[in-house]
Amino acid sequence: MPKEWFVGNAFLTPLLAKDKNNEFSAGSVTFEPTARTNWHTHPKGQVLIVIEGDGFYQEKGKPALRIKKGDVVNIPENTEHWHGASAKSKMVHIAITNYKDDVQVTWLQPVTDEEYNKVND
Amino acid sequence: MPKEWFVGNAFLTPLLAKDKNNEFSAGSVTFEPTARTNWHTHPKGQVLIVIEGDGFYQEKGKPALRIKKGDVVNIPENTEHWHGASAKSKMVHIAITNYKDDVQVTWLQPVTDEEYNKVND
Repeated sequence: MPKEWFVGNAFLTPLLAKDKNNEFSAGSVTFEPTARTNWHTHPKGQVLIVIEGDGFYQEKGKPALRIKKGDVVNIPENTEHWHGASAKSKMVHIAITNYKDDVQVTWLQPVTDEEYNKVND
Repeated sequence: MPKEWFVGNAFLTPLLAKDKNNEFSAGSVTFEPTARTNWHTHPKGQVLIVIEGDGFYQEKGKPALRIKKGDVVNIPENTEHWHGASAKSKMVHIAITNYKDDVQVTWLQPVTDEEYNKVND
């Protein structure tokens, strides 16, 4: 995936495009250990369902949450955050991403090694 | 789950309720071998993402499709169908079910053993 969106090795498998019934897209994202998204926001939120491994979800200014297989994150709209694998495990999650008009995401700055290492301590 | 909805052993884990951003609910459904939904319809469709095992998806009057881990089914609105495990394997799928007003599903008659055995031949 574009380097502007992720740090490390992450792979997207698109599963479903928006259509007349579904006001969202769905995809499966595999993060290898230490891979993570950049900071970003969604104008109408996103739902993550972890289906393998474990990792982190963090909103700006809050402690990171450790997430693992079976966990669900209901990400609010317009809330800066990142998600990714832990340093020792890969993570696979399904992402259901709502549309606001034609926009799903606004990408921001990378999660630095300093920020990332802090949550893995 | 209620016997009016399923034949055999099937278990629903609710993952997400409808809210202001998400016009759908999401859940994980585990079907033990031979378990299947009744015939049913969705007024605004449903998306299935198979995350373990294999099974079937069948629309009324059409051949059954074998579905397995990684497969996605985008079920149209108002289309009579069933889904469930194969006779020899369990199946787990995530279901993303849209709402039309407050309705998600209309349950119909069971999938008989005769109907089910035919697709397993």
